[in-house]
Amino acid sequence: QITNPSGEGTDAVIILEKTPFREEKVLELLKKHRKLELQMSNDIYSTYHLFPPPELSEIKTTVVYPATEKHLQKYLRQEIHLVRETWEDYRDITLPFIQAQSFSTQWVYNILEKKAEADRILHENPDPRDGFVLLPDFKWNQNQLDDLYLIALVHRRDIKSLRDLTAEHLPLLRNILQEGKEAITKRFGVPGSQLRIYLHYQPSYYHLHVHFTALGYEAPGSWVERAHLLADVIDNLLTDPSYYQKRALTFALRADELLLKRFQEAGRV
Amino acid sequence: QITNPSGEGTDAVIILEKTPFREEKVLELLKKHRKLELQMSNDIYSTYHLFPPPELSEIKTTVVYPATEKHLQKYLRQEIHLVRETWEDYRDITLPFIQAQSFSTQWVYNILEKKAEADRILHENPDPRDGFVLLPDFKWNQNQLDDLYLIALVHRRDIKSLRDLTAEHLPLLRNILQEGKEAITKRFGVPGSQLRIYLHYQPSYYHLHVHFTALGYEAPGSWVERAHLLADVIDNLLTDPSYYQKRALTFALRADELLLKRFQEAGRV
Repeated sequence: QITNPSGEGTDAVIILEKTPFREEKVLELLKKHRKLELQMSNDIYSTYHLFPPPELSEIKTTVVYPATEKHLQKYLRQEIHLVRETWEDYRDITLPFIQAQSFSTQWVYNILEKKAEADRILHENPDPRDGFVLLPDFKWNQNQLDDLYLIALVHRRDIKSLRDLTAEHLPLLRNILQEGKEAITKRFGVPGSQLRIYLHYQPSYYHLHVHFTALGYEAPGSWVERAHLLADVIDNLLTDPSYYQKRALTFALRADELLLKRFQEAGRV
Repeated sequence: QITNPSGEGTDAVIILEKTPFREEKVLELLKKHRKLELQMSNDIYSTYHLFPPPELSEIKTTVVYPATEKHLQKYLRQEIHLVRETWEDYRDITLPFIQAQSFSTQWVYNILEKKAEADRILHENPDPRDGFVLLPDFKWNQNQLDDLYLIALVHRRDIKSLRDLTAEHLPLLRNILQEGKEAITKRFGVPGSQLRIYLHYQPSYYHLHVHFTALGYEAPGSWVERAHLLADVIDNLLTDPSYYQKRALTFALRADELLLKRFQEAGRV
């Protein structure tokens, strides 16, 4: 709580983040430390507490002020719960929820129609049924390849998520896998074997899209309870054309998410 | 390179790690900072560079000295490659590799026979075919639940990995899923819906084991290219008793791993 000029207490959110080491500053850090305390020593191994000068230990600080209740909720630690969604759960709980929310995907259509971000498109297959566009994700600043992150957005507008996929979509999925890898290798020099290519379930928006991230990058949402490798999705559809209209899928929901409430009301969590 | 008393240059490995914020020190940090620079301001949002005093910005420093070539290799950044292993690849490349290496799992047998760590066992189902022991993983110090990590080791010694599983093992897998959750809830109060329960492929040792981690903990090896949810494994075996003797599985290998060399020699990477 910060006291504002009127004397009333008003909430603020303060976010503190330690930033990654900068390679070019490491030598300076080792030379200019203020104190170096030996903690333990054993054979060739030893550990120390090193106390760097302030100028080499910047903390990124973000302030939201005045903060509303919604801001506070967003940053409070939330419980997470796993849901194991059967096909019947999808039909009876998740699908009605998605339809009732009618999430806007206008920003996706703007990209597909070249009304926005047209200059950011790396590759396009223009086929209306089996085509897609590939572009850098917002989270990637393109300054380094370590956290490479691109997104393929399909041209078709009738596929909400993994749950809608059938064998009919195999040509589309194969195009994304093949052409996506090739385009990224050509532009960035990263071979296909160093890319993690996957879908989210649940996705954060209900227009089918595929994530391409650097394999060495621990991208948020690349955990087993959210990510589905595109190569596995293709194999599953080859084995059973209606695989995703039969199988249970696991995902995590935060305690404040409405979909979790729906599953709780249905006695499924 | 550090020059030793004899005047010869000898390599050292120095590992620098920023440590997590300690909650009880945050107020001190906000009061005692050396400098606070405004970076940008927009509506209710603003960002700053905050420079903390040395005593509040400890860096954990580990030194290996003198370091051998092997130490240097271990810490040098390595390329990682994805391998998509078909069943035939497993039979012709991976299985012969595992057999030739004959990795020791004596430490697992010591636990199963109560010759070591007997006091750490949280739960046991003693059935020789469908039983297992559950105990905390070495990586978990048990001081807090945030990074809860337990391991179930099966009593049977004939199951190397996911690749050996068939419908015959369903009772064993169901016991692990059900009893593992119950034992963790009873001891630690963490409900089953807040646990990530999975197998690794490739595993780090070839005696079947199952990982239990806190869902909020971004445990190493919980990424989609290594982790397989136990609930999915059970469903796959229900759909097809020989699922894991047919399907391709994806995993990542570091450039220095011998198994990658085998795949490269076979022209599969």
